[in-house]
Amino acid sequence: MEIAFLFYEGMTALDAIGPHEVLCRLPGTKIKRVAKQKGPVHSESAGLYLTAEYDFFDVKHADVLVIPGAGNATSLQNSPETLSWIQKIHATTRWTTSVCTGSLILGAAGLLKNVRATSHWATIDRLPHWGAKPVHARVVEDGKIMTAAGVSAGIDMALTLADRICGPQVAQTLQLGIEYDPHPPFDVGSPDKANPAIVAALRAHFSKVFERM
Amino acid sequence: MEIAFLFYEGMTALDAIGPHEVLCRLPGTKIKRVAKQKGPVHSESAGLYLTAEYDFFDVKHADVLVIPGAGNATSLQNSPETLSWIQKIHATTRWTTSVCTGSLILGAAGLLKNVRATSHWATIDRLPHWGAKPVHARVVEDGKIMTAAGVSAGIDMALTLADRICGPQVAQTLQLGIEYDPHPPFDVGSPDKANPAIVAALRAHFSKVFERM
Repeated sequence: MEIAFLFYEGMTALDAIGPHEVLCRLPGTKIKRVAKQKGPVHSESAGLYLTAEYDFFDVKHADVLVIPGAGNATSLQNSPETLSWIQKIHATTRWTTSVCTGSLILGAAGLLKNVRATSHWATIDRLPHWGAKPVHARVVEDGKIMTAAGVSAGIDMALTLADRICGPQVAQTLQLGIEYDPHPPFDVGSPDKANPAIVAALRAHFSKVFERM
Repeated sequence: MEIAFLFYEGMTALDAIGPHEVLCRLPGTKIKRVAKQKGPVHSESAGLYLTAEYDFFDVKHADVLVIPGAGNATSLQNSPETLSWIQKIHATTRWTTSVCTGSLILGAAGLLKNVRATSHWATIDRLPHWGAKPVHARVVEDGKIMTAAGVSAGIDMALTLADRICGPQVAQTLQLGIEYDPHPPFDVGSPDKANPAIVAALRAHFSKVFERM
C-alpha cells in the first residue's frame, strides 16, 4: 500500500508527522513524501526542514493521501499545480485525508462539495466557502474523505484510518507502540473547554494570519 | 531562551516533533536543532530526513535540552562525542528533558544517577542499569530533569514544560493552538489497558530491536 504525504512550504510539521509516525508502521506500507519540488521543505515550525523525496511528476497514484495544514494553507489555492496533483491522486485513492487546515486545501481542490468535513477550530467556519458541511468533531469520515481537527488531531485520525484499513488489532498495536495514552496537563484543548479570553486572543491571532494570505 | 533538540541517525520523528511543535511556539524562543554533523538526519520513521542546522561545535549552551528516543537509542552509548555534548549542555540548562528511550541516552550520559525518570513502557526496566529510579508515569520531573513516556508523551511533557517556564496561560494557549483535545479511537495506549496478547507481541518485538543493538 502506498501512502503519499503532501509536503509544502509553510506546512505545520506536527500535522504531517503525527499521522506519519502512525501510518509508517502499518504493515506492508510504502511512504512517499511528495512536494512540488523534491528536497528539503521549509515548515512553519521554527523553520524546520523536512525532506520530500518525490515531486508531483514522480507520484501518480496513492492508496492514501495525507494533506497537512499550515497557517498559510489557503495560499495553495494559488498553486494550480498543487491542486491539480491533489485531484489526480484523489482519483486513485482509497482514502483522501487532511489534518487541520489541510481540509481548506482539499476544499480549494474542489473535493469537498457537499462533503461533511472538519478543520482547525479557528478555521472550520471557512469550509462552507468550498461547499463543505462543517462538522465539529475530532475526526470526520464522509465516503473516502477523512478530515481531522487541528494539528494534534492527525494522530487520532491516523489510528482511525489504521483501524479502517487493517482492523482493530493492528490499530491497537500501533497505538500501544507509540504509547498514545494522552494525559494533557490541562483540559483546555478545544474552544468549548478553554478560558474564553484565551479563545478570543487566539482567534484574533489566527484571523490575522489568514488575512495576510 | 534557547531550546536545543538533539537529532541523530535512527531517532523517532514524533519523539522530537511533538515537543518541537509546542516549544517552538513559546514566546521569545530560539530553537536549535543539533546533530553530530549538521544537515539532513535520517530518522527511523520510514526514513524521513529532518535537518539539523547546528553541530556539537556550534552549540555550547541551552536553556532547555530535548533528547528524543529511537529504537536504537542505546547505540548512542557508543558515541562518546554525543554523550560528552549532552553532559556539557546539561551543565548549562534550566531543563534537561527526554522523550521515550531518550531517557536511556540521558542515563548513558550519566545524568540519571538516583534520579526518578520514565521511558517507553517496553524499556523502562532498563533505567536502573544507569542508576535511575523508574517511575511509571506519563511525565516525570526530578529537579531539572523531565522525562516522558513513549513517543506521543512528548506532547504532554512539552505542555508541562511550557507551564513551568511561562505559566498556565501560555501553556493553555499553546494547547488550544494545537487543538490538543485527544480522542484516541481506543483506550489501549498503555500496557495495563491493552489486550495482553498485543502487549506480549509488542514487548517481544521491542526486545528483538534492543538485542540487535
